[in-house]
Amino acid sequence: MPSEPIRYVTKVDLTKPGDQQPQVHNRWHPDVPFSETIKPGETVKIECLDWTGNQIKNNDTADDILNVDLTRIHYLSGPFNIEGAEPGDALVVEIKDVQPLERQPWGYCGIFHKKNGGGFLDKFYPEAAKAIFDLEGIHATSRHIPHVKFTGLIHPGIMGTAPSAEVLQEWNSRESGLIKEIQHAHDMAVANAPLETNAHAGSADAELAAKIAKEGARTIPGRPENGGNCDIKNLSRGSKCYFPVYVPGAKFSVGDLHFSQGDGEISFCGAIEMPGVITIQTSIIKGGIEKLSLKSPIFIPGDVQNHYGPSRYLTFEGFSVDEEGKQQFLCATTAYRQACIRAIEYLRKFGYNDYQIYLLLSSAPIEGHVAGIVDVPNACTTIGIPMDIFDFDIGPEGGLEKQDMGNCALVEGAKHELIYEYK
Amino acid sequence: MPSEPIRYVTKVDLTKPGDQQPQVHNRWHPDVPFSETIKPGETVKIECLDWTGNQIKNNDTADDILNVDLTRIHYLSGPFNIEGAEPGDALVVEIKDVQPLERQPWGYCGIFHKKNGGGFLDKFYPEAAKAIFDLEGIHATSRHIPHVKFTGLIHPGIMGTAPSAEVLQEWNSRESGLIKEIQHAHDMAVANAPLETNAHAGSADAELAAKIAKEGARTIPGRPENGGNCDIKNLSRGSKCYFPVYVPGAKFSVGDLHFSQGDGEISFCGAIEMPGVITIQTSIIKGGIEKLSLKSPIFIPGDVQNHYGPSRYLTFEGFSVDEEGKQQFLCATTAYRQACIRAIEYLRKFGYNDYQIYLLLSSAPIEGHVAGIVDVPNACTTIGIPMDIFDFDIGPEGGLEKQDMGNCALVEGAKHELIYEYK
Amino acid sequence: MPSEPIRYVTKVDLTKPGDQQPQVHNRWHPDVPFSETIKPGETVKIECLDWTGNQIKNNDTADDILNVDLTRIHYLSGPFNIEGAEPGDALVVEIKDVQPLERQPWGYCGIFHKKNGGGFLDKFYPEAAKAIFDLEGIHATSRHIPHVKFTGLIHPGIMGTAPSAEVLQEWNSRESGLIKEIQHAHDMAVANAPLETNAHAGSADAELAAKIAKEGARTIPGRPENGGNCDIKNLSRGSKCYFPVYVPGAKFSVGDLHFSQGDGEISFCGAIEMPGVITIQTSIIKGGIEKLSLKSPIFIPGDVQNHYGPSRYLTFEGFSVDEEGKQQFLCATTAYRQACIRAIEYLRKFGYNDYQIYLLLSSAPIEGHVAGIVDVPNACTTIGIPMDIFDFDIGPEGGLEKQDMGNCALVEGAKHELIYEYK
Amino acid sequence: MPSEPIRYVTKVDLTKPGDQQPQVHNRWHPDVPFSETIKPGETVKIECLDWTGNQIKNNDTADDILNVDLTRIHYLSGPFNIEGAEPGDALVVEIKDVQPLERQPWGYCGIFHKKNGGGFLDKFYPEAAKAIFDLEGIHATSRHIPHVKFTGLIHPGIMGTAPSAEVLQEWNSRESGLIKEIQHAHDMAVANAPLETNAHAGSADAELAAKIAKEGARTIPGRPENGGNCDIKNLSRGSKCYFPVYVPGAKFSVGDLHFSQGDGEISFCGAIEMPGVITIQTSIIKGGIEKLSLKSPIFIPGDVQNHYGPSRYLTFEGFSVDEEGKQQFLCATTAYRQACIRAIEYLRKFGYNDYQIYLLLSSAPIEGHVAGIVDVPNACTTIGIPMDIFDFDIGPEGGLEKQDMGNCALVEGAKHELIYEYK
Repeated sequence: MPSEPIRYVTKVDLTKPGDQQPQVHNRWHPDVPFSETIKPGETVKIECLDWTGNQIKNNDTADDILNVDLTRIHYLSGPFNIEGAEPGDALVVEIKDVQPLERQPWGYCGIFHKKNGGGFLDKFYPEAAKAIFDLEGIHATSRHIPHVKFTGLIHPGIMGTAPSAEVLQEWNSRESGLIKEIQHAHDMAVANAPLETNAHAGSADAELAAKIAKEGARTIPGRPENGGNCDIKNLSRGSKCYFPVYVPGAKFSVGDLHFSQGDGEISFCGAIEMPGVITIQTSIIKGGIEKLSLKSPIFIPGDVQNHYGPSRYLTFEGFSVDEEGKQQFLCATTAYRQACIRAIEYLRKFGYNDYQIYLLLSSAPIEGHVAGIVDVPNACTTIGIPMDIFDFDIGPEGGLEKQDMGNCALVEGAKHELIYEYK
Repeated sequence: MPSEPIRYVTKVDLTKPGDQQPQVHNRWHPDVPFSETIKPGETVKIECLDWTGNQIKNNDTADDILNVDLTRIHYLSGPFNIEGAEPGDALVVEIKDVQPLERQPWGYCGIFHKKNGGGFLDKFYPEAAKAIFDLEGIHATSRHIPHVKFTGLIHPGIMGTAPSAEVLQEWNSRESGLIKEIQHAHDMAVANAPLETNAHAGSADAELAAKIAKEGARTIPGRPENGGNCDIKNLSRGSKCYFPVYVPGAKFSVGDLHFSQGDGEISFCGAIEMPGVITIQTSIIKGGIEKLSLKSPIFIPGDVQNHYGPSRYLTFEGFSVDEEGKQQFLCATTAYRQACIRAIEYLRKFGYNDYQIYLLLSSAPIEGHVAGIVDVPNACTTIGIPMDIFDFDIGPEGGLEKQDMGNCALVEGAKHELIYEYK
Repeated sequence: MPSEPIRYVTKVDLTKPGDQQPQVHNRWHPDVPFSETIKPGETVKIECLDWTGNQIKNNDTADDILNVDLTRIHYLSGPFNIEGAEPGDALVVEIKDVQPLERQPWGYCGIFHKKNGGGFLDKFYPEAAKAIFDLEGIHATSRHIPHVKFTGLIHPGIMGTAPSAEVLQEWNSRESGLIKEIQHAHDMAVANAPLETNAHAGSADAELAAKIAKEGARTIPGRPENGGNCDIKNLSRGSKCYFPVYVPGAKFSVGDLHFSQGDGEISFCGAIEMPGVITIQTSIIKGGIEKLSLKSPIFIPGDVQNHYGPSRYLTFEGFSVDEEGKQQFLCATTAYRQACIRAIEYLRKFGYNDYQIYLLLSSAPIEGHVAGIVDVPNACTTIGIPMDIFDFDIGPEGGLEKQDMGNCALVEGAKHELIYEYK
Repeated sequence: MPSEPIRYVTKVDLTKPGDQQPQVHNRWHPDVPFSETIKPGETVKIECLDWTGNQIKNNDTADDILNVDLTRIHYLSGPFNIEGAEPGDALVVEIKDVQPLERQPWGYCGIFHKKNGGGFLDKFYPEAAKAIFDLEGIHATSRHIPHVKFTGLIHPGIMGTAPSAEVLQEWNSRESGLIKEIQHAHDMAVANAPLETNAHAGSADAELAAKIAKEGARTIPGRPENGGNCDIKNLSRGSKCYFPVYVPGAKFSVGDLHFSQGDGEISFCGAIEMPGVITIQTSIIKGGIEKLSLKSPIFIPGDVQNHYGPSRYLTFEGFSVDEEGKQQFLCATTAYRQACIRAIEYLRKFGYNDYQIYLLLSSAPIEGHVAGIVDVPNACTTIGIPMDIFDFDIGPEGGLEKQDMGNCALVEGAKHELIYEYK
């Protein structure tokens, strides 16, 4: 009888850096050794570190965000040997649950400094900031963003199968091509090439670890072939996800758990980041890549997302005219940025400063939609804010009154502007 | 007692071209004469032509789509004088209802030829195509896309207030800037400059009409200042929308009604286009532009959108690696196109051809989300297809069986490929 | 090509009493002549009178409610000959739409006098009252219940197939049995036996009409065998309903349209009653009674009900301890009445009187659930009120402030109490 | 900084009977000693025993159900001293989470024997039966009811404040009145009078325990004054509940956790019963009983209930004509029973036996609505079954094919009928 507690295939240590823990790794590579074996049909629990591997603390300064070491991130649990999975199959992962760890009932959302990570709005908000969220059951609240409480649409930021050598080669070639082509025109990294510094190859021996460090793909981007860091907020509890399998055993990895996130995860470290535990059950569709035309993962969400009713979303429109008033051509990225800016300008009225709002739009269950993508020259996108997460009425016909909203965590001695004057 | 039928402020004639009907117009300009006056608080009905002004017919050929005259489109009802609205105010428009006309219970979705309109996927699907939808109450079905039935999230594609002379000047300057800068590199129009041909200035006299024709902004793009052709599918029944007012009386116009549309309206003429009637009630927030920081329209949707439950959406992921395998930089537009392509490749399995699927993704209540927008170099977007609109199981663990799906309407004698072979 | 307007199979006249209109009838009987034939697969429109056949007016007195003639009600459109339907089949009716008539954009909700109709709470609220609702698109508002606006979950109160002679006999026997058994203990009718007065047998000739008048079952109750006056608010647009067929051609009838209704329709004339038009499409499942074990109708609702999100319902609990403090045994009816009373006591705080609230609970989209039905001796039920239908915060932690709420329509010169003092 | 794990105010032992654990109790009485103190605003975790105090085992026989000792049930955690709560206040309890215990990832649903507990349908299904559910994250599945999986709408069956001496007196008088009046006509207990046998007064000393045993109200029924065993499935995660306070410190108790339950909890032990942990946060509204007219608890559900979309519910209608064909008068209880029977007859077609279906309707997220309650003589209720909990199509137009569905757990050597032949 299945009366036993569900088996843990990974446990993590919150007191040690990620690279001292061999059951996690931070590169995509076909040769990272299996950390455990999972049978199809078996339900297992997997603990995961937060994405920085314990670098961020529960306090009121953003110094740790400012100084975060971005070579030491994305410690993924796994890779797991899914018994019987072979190249050409589809790996089905059903997310039975995601929870914060009972021993650490808090998470954080960070705005990274423009020179160390940046984010979607770093042009306007270049400084580091942080909000700590207390996680109590299904609810998150933050002393740094008062008068807000919401239910987390909890999910893993990263899930993926390992690339084959060929797929890995394609990634490295594709991304180095971009670096060659456009890096000169940007002051931030446009992509991250393989990097030996602080590569963590799980339980690999020295020789293998060196190979993986040299060749392994970085974990920042999601990629069409295997998913990875997709940051899809709706991949929450109950979701069933279909991944292409490229190597024997699938080598499935998971990490970067989020208690909640807005569409776009705009501040980069923009979800409520946390260590936690994910419960999954797997199955295999033989020959699934061909059967499902599976070039990228597909999924079916679960049936318990927080739902506020459509009429509870205050919705802002954004178009591809940028903040300088310059017309961009059908650029949904610009349009989405504009929608975010409109929301910031609006929410300021209640006393929040821009950094607080930026953190909130990143971490709360914000809906970001593509609206129109063909009406030259303007793409149109929308961003919908669930009004019920506030304990006062933010509607246009509510009181529109300013309150004392305190502040988010800033760096020690910060004196920079907290409001950006858009034209 | 308010026992009288609701007042019509516009009626349209489905047997005459739009430019012979003075109660509609097709340019944004501060001087288009008022067509009618509406008091705040009064509920009124406004009939609207379909966006082509009766050019498209209910038949099985796409010849009318191929030959559509794109200088004769977007005949908007209005502009209306909202009594008491002044520059600086916010105009509140509550959509009480949108309905097809009882006298024409059908609509259409078109794929425009690459050389005459084009669309989001015209690189792959350059030919004209069409699907006719029968509109019966809340349901749409099409003989051109069998085994599908869905409830329309009915809405106006276009609503907006008139620009002031200054705003109009800004538009023309901004868009002509883009034309100068990048038109040479595109084989399709990147923006549409003012055009005298077939400009329709409503009831303006000849002199004024000539001025409007010369200066008036084209209606294709939505614009941040006044909304316009936003094609936001969620602006459906019950929505309350807040527009900036730039001219006395607001000069609100509305048109381009859609029985249903997918996020993105990807085939350009991609909604179920129809003539129809919209019922609205207006109010005014004095000084609303400043009170609400209203640089672009904002809205709150109604409470009756079709809702299938989150677990009923088969969801495809798209990344900013284009169809040639080339890495683009955080481009949500590319990512959304890729998500669409993934959905097409999948739905083919059931016997639909690519043109049918392209029409379906354009017109059905498809959800298009921005997922991750900061994970260099890949933006990630998703497209969710409600499985309940099919009368068979499209799930990855359903039968995946091919059926005879007939065809959409093509041009007379068409012999082109109906499937595009992606790499 | 199906370009023609949808065919009307019934039109009604709002200026004449129901019994002067041969295309409607008000008895269930196998011999009422067909009013029209409908082919399976054909979509048709059916106009319906309001349930009183034009007896109630849009004014500010409840005199018409007080004096309503209850022998002249429930004029049903039909019966329709569904081509090919035979006894033993299941008739499938898909509701494509329900709309008020454009020529009468209002409806009413009435509290019937205890001596002329009564209602669920007539012990406390014996007097007649009325609220007129203006119907504007999807929205209803009432000058008699201010500060409330809601979207109608529009539906027919009555749909059903005709009984066979045997089924009719069973009804008359079963209900007359109840009358014999318990009528003596009640001061209101516990059931309505066949009644010749004002029976309306549609287009029947005099002889047949006399027979139908004598034998025909009354329309007040819903019945397990054929549905009838079920007053199920969720049988709204998009619903697909499966009825047993007892006579050749099914003899389907429909009427008593409701713009909106709360679960229970507690004030008896408790929905927003209106004339209107319903659009349906039918099909037949041969042998469906046996195939589906179809002793009573079953249905699948549509996908566009108003949805407010679960967290927007203020919910009251009711138990089977009656208003005298007497313990009843597992009586869900008592429990539901208590839940209603709790809601009334609460909503009074905002300035509404009990009659207004009684009307509101009857007509708004209130959710009434059976919660626990086995915990002796108490049944527990709940009643959920969508908070979003009010334009102020009714939550327990909102302001709880009294406003001037005017009054509903009462009878001329009414001086009775508007508040009942519960223990 | 709130970095510490959330405090447990109750832990339970799954290896010992409930009455050996002083932190729980099984009577409602003002004098049960406080088990712990909770400060308003503090979030705490409370472990709870399953309602039988560990009597039921994870195996394939219903012998434990048959022989369950019903004097040893409902061991409630508490009562808790909510600091500062005084008679006349309202106690606000926000449910932050409910979870099964990691150490026991299963629960059960039982049909009690007609002579030992019974249930809503015990007339037809008098024998004991059981289904064990495996609880994996948000999902429940049962080897005893195959082809079904659903997300639990997890909740406490019992929450309540302690009665004052006066309220307790009222309960005992009210319920003993019922016993006197109608017990003679029933073969099962119509109510449970105070009983000294196996009364458990928490940590009370012998003298006090004897008093409580003698006077304390039994826990089976919910009651209007304090809630108690309401079995409201929607009182799930995120719900905020308002209770009247009758004694200093409120003496709040909680227990009888349910992983999932259908409206009505029809088989009596009809939820998925489990030990577990509930996380709550409390606050106090001073004078709340008067402020809120709080005669019975009220609540606002959370925002994360499982939602399948309205069009995913196969809905059965039930009327107050009983299974003998006898007409009952406006009896919602009869009507709900009939709706249940209709659902059983239908679901049999797929191979389930009646006991399996009875267990399923009890435990799955079934919607039970009051539809019409005024149309003499028939009440009408509905029961909606979410079709998505089955891994095959149960719709009337699906295949309707019989499968091998195994069996639920029955008593050792059971030979009784598994299907009841309704007329």
